[in-house]
Amino acid sequence: MHKKVSIIGLGLIGGSIALDLKKSGFASHIIGVDASPIHRQQALQLGIADEILPLSEAMLQADLVVAAIPVNALMECLPHVLDIIPPHAVVTDVGSTKSALINTVKNHPNRRQYVPSHPMAGTENSGPAAALPHLFSGKVAVICNPDDSSAEALVTVRSMYAHLEARIVLMDADSHDEHVGYVSHLSHVISYALAVAVLEKEKNDAAIFNLASAGFASTVRLAKSSVDMWLPIFLQNKDHILPIINTYLDTLIRFKTYLENDETDRLSDFIKEANKIRTKLEQK
Amino acid sequence: MHKKVSIIGLGLIGGSIALDLKKSGFASHIIGVDASPIHRQQALQLGIADEILPLSEAMLQADLVVAAIPVNALMECLPHVLDIIPPHAVVTDVGSTKSALINTVKNHPNRRQYVPSHPMAGTENSGPAAALPHLFSGKVAVICNPDDSSAEALVTVRSMYAHLEARIVLMDADSHDEHVGYVSHLSHVISYALAVAVLEKEKNDAAIFNLASAGFASTVRLAKSSVDMWLPIFLQNKDHILPIINTYLDTLIRFKTYLENDETDRLSDFIKEANKIRTKLEQK
Repeated sequence: MHKKVSIIGLGLIGGSIALDLKKSGFASHIIGVDASPIHRQQALQLGIADEILPLSEAMLQADLVVAAIPVNALMECLPHVLDIIPPHAVVTDVGSTKSALINTVKNHPNRRQYVPSHPMAGTENSGPAAALPHLFSGKVAVICNPDDSSAEALVTVRSMYAHLEARIVLMDADSHDEHVGYVSHLSHVISYALAVAVLEKEKNDAAIFNLASAGFASTVRLAKSSVDMWLPIFLQNKDHILPIINTYLDTLIRFKTYLENDETDRLSDFIKEANKIRTKLEQK
Repeated sequence: MHKKVSIIGLGLIGGSIALDLKKSGFASHIIGVDASPIHRQQALQLGIADEILPLSEAMLQADLVVAAIPVNALMECLPHVLDIIPPHAVVTDVGSTKSALINTVKNHPNRRQYVPSHPMAGTENSGPAAALPHLFSGKVAVICNPDDSSAEALVTVRSMYAHLEARIVLMDADSHDEHVGYVSHLSHVISYALAVAVLEKEKNDAAIFNLASAGFASTVRLAKSSVDMWLPIFLQNKDHILPIINTYLDTLIRFKTYLENDETDRLSDFIKEANKIRTKLEQK
């Protein structure tokens, strides 16, 4: 409680974390770090950060550092942050891919001050103005490879997520990367592809969106997600995502083949199998 | 106004129409027809129907008939309904495919009493308990091939949709079937396939849903939709849906190939192109 928290990246995720850490009393003071002058100004105006400092000063003053920048930027930033933080400070990140990042600091002398994490929440929007209170309430936050972090660092990061009202799940980094490949990254891939396919159709048929309803909006929502955040995720998690896309393609082609061949019993079984997702999601 | 409306099929769509037609004063009396005894009872309890009658009696008493049953059942039901309705009565249906159905009655002597329509709204739920007030408010309702309906019949169906607060779009049946193939049927296909792919993964990895978040829920929502409604739609609109699935597969494979080959510029352009869906949906 009453910690000085430095947040690197004042966007949707970093900004939402800041709002709740301040309101819950976990943070006595939020120091913001952001490469964008506009975002720095917005973060101050929106009460996301109490003050803005350059990275190195923000690190020196921090009890806890939360790095909430795209996963490619994390690869450069995290080793540097571990180089310069005070001995008592704890560092976490909230990136959507974990193995590659953990690998870059595996031999760092301050590795045990770092707790890799990933809160499973977000929206298709970005920037400080997209920050939302209670974004993580009731959601899962993954902590990866906890044995490689110090007990004190784990206590701090667990406490942070408790103040965000998130539920902790422990997982090794490779399992994390495969699981989010299925239930997060694949959803983004198929949604981007849906948007591109329909937008290309629109070039010859301007009326195509006239009939778009809530169902289309739901399926295509993630296609609004920012390229800065998502392109590095796909590249870093490529070894998991490519076979997952292949599995998805095989499944979709199975549906198509049944339809081509009028195999109504198989189509019916396919749809009934898909319907089971209702129970699975309710059980969560 | 103050019409006797007979609704065939008291599910999500038929039930939602009934609620608003009664409340807005368009309908003085709602007669319900449904093959399921449980749905008949629920519809009475929920105030969806004022009385339940067998099909032939319900048709004889109706000023307006709304057929809201799966598109395969419509193919059998609609010719029979046109055979027996009174000369002043109007018939509409709300099916998601239009060409095949219109074709079955193209030479029917009472064809001009029939107005093919399709309100673009729904949810992934079904049955009378899923009916919602205001479901169609602000949404598009398509009327197909209006030249083949009488002026009086068009006035009645336009007035019905005005009381549902829907916006009418006129369209030929074949264009309708292609457009909904893109912006409705394809969304269902890719969502069913996503559910099946992830459920199959779960057979070997029970923890796969632990990390499922709002993004996954959004993309997979339509996979909960009922097989009774959707299988007949896919079969009837097969000639449009198959090439649309192929276009989608080509688009997804393009994304996969860029990722395989580390073509980051092309991946970036792909995602930025997909992002344009935000503006398109806001313009609607």
